[in-house]
Amino acid sequence: VTNGPEASGQRSETVRRANLSTILYQVHLRGPLSRSELVARTGLTRGAIRGLIGELNAGGLVSEERSMPLGVPGRPSPLARPRHHGVVVLALEIAVDSLAAAVVGLGGGVIEHVRLDRSRGHLSPERIVSDLVRSARPMVSRLRGGTTLVGIGVSMVGVVRVSDGVIRVAPNLGWLDVPLADLIARKLQLAVPVSVGNEADLGALAEHRRGAAAGVDDVLYISGEVGVGGGVIVGGRPLAGAAGYAGEVGHMPVNPAGSRCRCGSTGCWETEVGERALLRRAGHSPNGGRAAVDAVFEAAAAGSRREREALATTGRWLGRGLGGLVNAFNPSLVVLGGLFGRMHPFVEAEIAGALNLHALRASREVLRVAPAALGPDAPLLGAAEKAFEPLLVDPAGYLAPRPAIARLAGA
Amino acid sequence: VTNGPEASGQRSETVRRANLSTILYQVHLRGPLSRSELVARTGLTRGAIRGLIGELNAGGLVSEERSMPLGVPGRPSPLARPRHHGVVVLALEIAVDSLAAAVVGLGGGVIEHVRLDRSRGHLSPERIVSDLVRSARPMVSRLRGGTTLVGIGVSMVGVVRVSDGVIRVAPNLGWLDVPLADLIARKLQLAVPVSVGNEADLGALAEHRRGAAAGVDDVLYISGEVGVGGGVIVGGRPLAGAAGYAGEVGHMPVNPAGSRCRCGSTGCWETEVGERALLRRAGHSPNGGRAAVDAVFEAAAAGSRREREALATTGRWLGRGLGGLVNAFNPSLVVLGGLFGRMHPFVEAEIAGALNLHALRASREVLRVAPAALGPDAPLLGAAEKAFEPLLVDPAGYLAPRPAIARLAGA
Repeated sequence: VTNGPEASGQRSETVRRANLSTILYQVHLRGPLSRSELVARTGLTRGAIRGLIGELNAGGLVSEERSMPLGVPGRPSPLARPRHHGVVVLALEIAVDSLAAAVVGLGGGVIEHVRLDRSRGHLSPERIVSDLVRSARPMVSRLRGGTTLVGIGVSMVGVVRVSDGVIRVAPNLGWLDVPLADLIARKLQLAVPVSVGNEADLGALAEHRRGAAAGVDDVLYISGEVGVGGGVIVGGRPLAGAAGYAGEVGHMPVNPAGSRCRCGSTGCWETEVGERALLRRAGHSPNGGRAAVDAVFEAAAAGSRREREALATTGRWLGRGLGGLVNAFNPSLVVLGGLFGRMHPFVEAEIAGALNLHALRASREVLRVAPAALGPDAPLLGAAEKAFEPLLVDPAGYLAPRPAIARLAGA
Repeated sequence: VTNGPEASGQRSETVRRANLSTILYQVHLRGPLSRSELVARTGLTRGAIRGLIGELNAGGLVSEERSMPLGVPGRPSPLARPRHHGVVVLALEIAVDSLAAAVVGLGGGVIEHVRLDRSRGHLSPERIVSDLVRSARPMVSRLRGGTTLVGIGVSMVGVVRVSDGVIRVAPNLGWLDVPLADLIARKLQLAVPVSVGNEADLGALAEHRRGAAAGVDDVLYISGEVGVGGGVIVGGRPLAGAAGYAGEVGHMPVNPAGSRCRCGSTGCWETEVGERALLRRAGHSPNGGRAAVDAVFEAAAAGSRREREALATTGRWLGRGLGGLVNAFNPSLVVLGGLFGRMHPFVEAEIAGALNLHALRASREVLRVAPAALGPDAPLLGAAEKAFEPLLVDPAGYLAPRPAIARLAGA
């Protein structure tokens, strides 16, 4: 439904901005692309595409060069490429066991990347932010002169109010109502927007744009760790809900006779499928952490019965909860990340069996289950996508001189 | 993202069609509306609105007349009204206990309406369709000459493949893979499209457009009967899922130690909150049907303890399942329909208590719970909205002479 002003001049300006956005999205997600490929993907005319690429080129967002494949006759078609080194974002991640920082270029390629182990347990926001900033600042200083930093994206293991980047609760860190976006903005002083998202929402975004769910419109991404995270893609778009909290499926009540959850309730899905449940079933201390989880997978791979049964039971609970979610969302793909992606090869049959029992036959028929493709960096890459979003939605706003963008001086 | 052809003539034709749609939606949902109100609601200029209403008027969709409020000085502003009697749809409903048919005019007003009790239990598709058609045909014959019938909408208690109106499963009727849209189209022979939807999806649509959820963008509509239906509005739009099956929340697994469900599984939400669970807890036969349910509510209203406790227990299970769904969808409103709407005044405290325990605090804070406003006709009204949808999305297609629309001859 179009409801903007309809004076003809404004109308064509609106169309121009929308078309610039369409082209930049394509080049960012699928580039390099020839003009013929852009015609096929967008329905815009060749002439229009030439003009739009010219603008994006002049604005430093896209470069165009003739490709010269050996032995192919005829005039080579120019290829539009994202300016990988010219336009970048800073992506940060606060995970259960680690902190990460990366510089990611337009087009999604990682320019620099560092991941640091962190001890589990409660740490103050100030401590975490200062560790993150210490990792990020040298990367930013190393950016070439003339590089444009367009934003900062942060992935957070916790419940995030997306409007202002406040962490409502992060049980792994013991945080309540922490204004993380503000803390990072003040500490880094880079004069670009900071957007914070939940790690599963951002993992889902990354898998949808560049991973196991590329090209799929209705996706449920479920990622396991100590807790359970969920991110949902509905009709090709991330599901936010009223305040950005959608997808918090770890506290779905699945067992009234179950264990006490960290959230204060009983029988949440997390208490049956989280890391602690798996470790308990395998005879380890539930607090064994990553080393203990590694040991469970090694023993299971070597054929040890106790670990295999622990995985199978956990897999059945995973499938049971997925059954309810599949009925609610009717996705065509479930992507399993984190612990669940690792479990997948061991428990495919258990998941399928539980889905056959608990998902409606109609919804089951259109469903595929697959492990995540991007590995542990999916949330970090999703944070980068989120930071690029304002540029992608309205590149025109970045083509005009714009003091809000930090032109970095090289050091 | 605009990706149509961008030749200037085609562009303005696209804009014109979108603007016609914008105006017709407004008049259909909120009419009668003055031009000033339309300016405020759409952002279009007064001149553009005059032209668009002129077209809709000439095409027989909207009428414009000067209102003459007594005692208000100045030139009266013309009011655009939907042509309630000129443009209509036929809405049909197959419910647990009844069949219904209605003629609904543009603007949503009901012109004729009939609801027939039906015995519960398995009935063949042919029998149901012929009963429906017997109710509907006289209404259609009574339409005035020159009335345009634009579509037929059908609400169905079952799992519906929306692409072709096939009922995948309807446990209340014992149906499997029934091509309901085709059966109705062949029997009625009205040469207009037949669209079939799930009753909870259509109830949600109606409550969102004209009921308890009007103006709310993120809504979970849950309706109780023998089974449990769900319809979800996400960012202002109905959630369909990959094949139209989203919102089937009745078979969410909530209790591994629970009862056997009709679906073959165990401990589905339906087995704890459906009509049969309530009747069992109140000491009635679970097959007592509507009369027994009425008796439970009468006794509870009179203060009888057993019935009040049965309602309270059912209300706690209702809140528990809602907690999981609220975490998954983060709606700002839960609308309770059918049996749950009736239960609401008795179990508000139990629902709130269970939500406090099972929903994340952040999601709980932005949530309201309210009973449905449209009563038992909500799915029927939703079916009418669905049947109007192609007209509302592209009125321009209906303004040109169009043989696919049945011009009814009056008898």
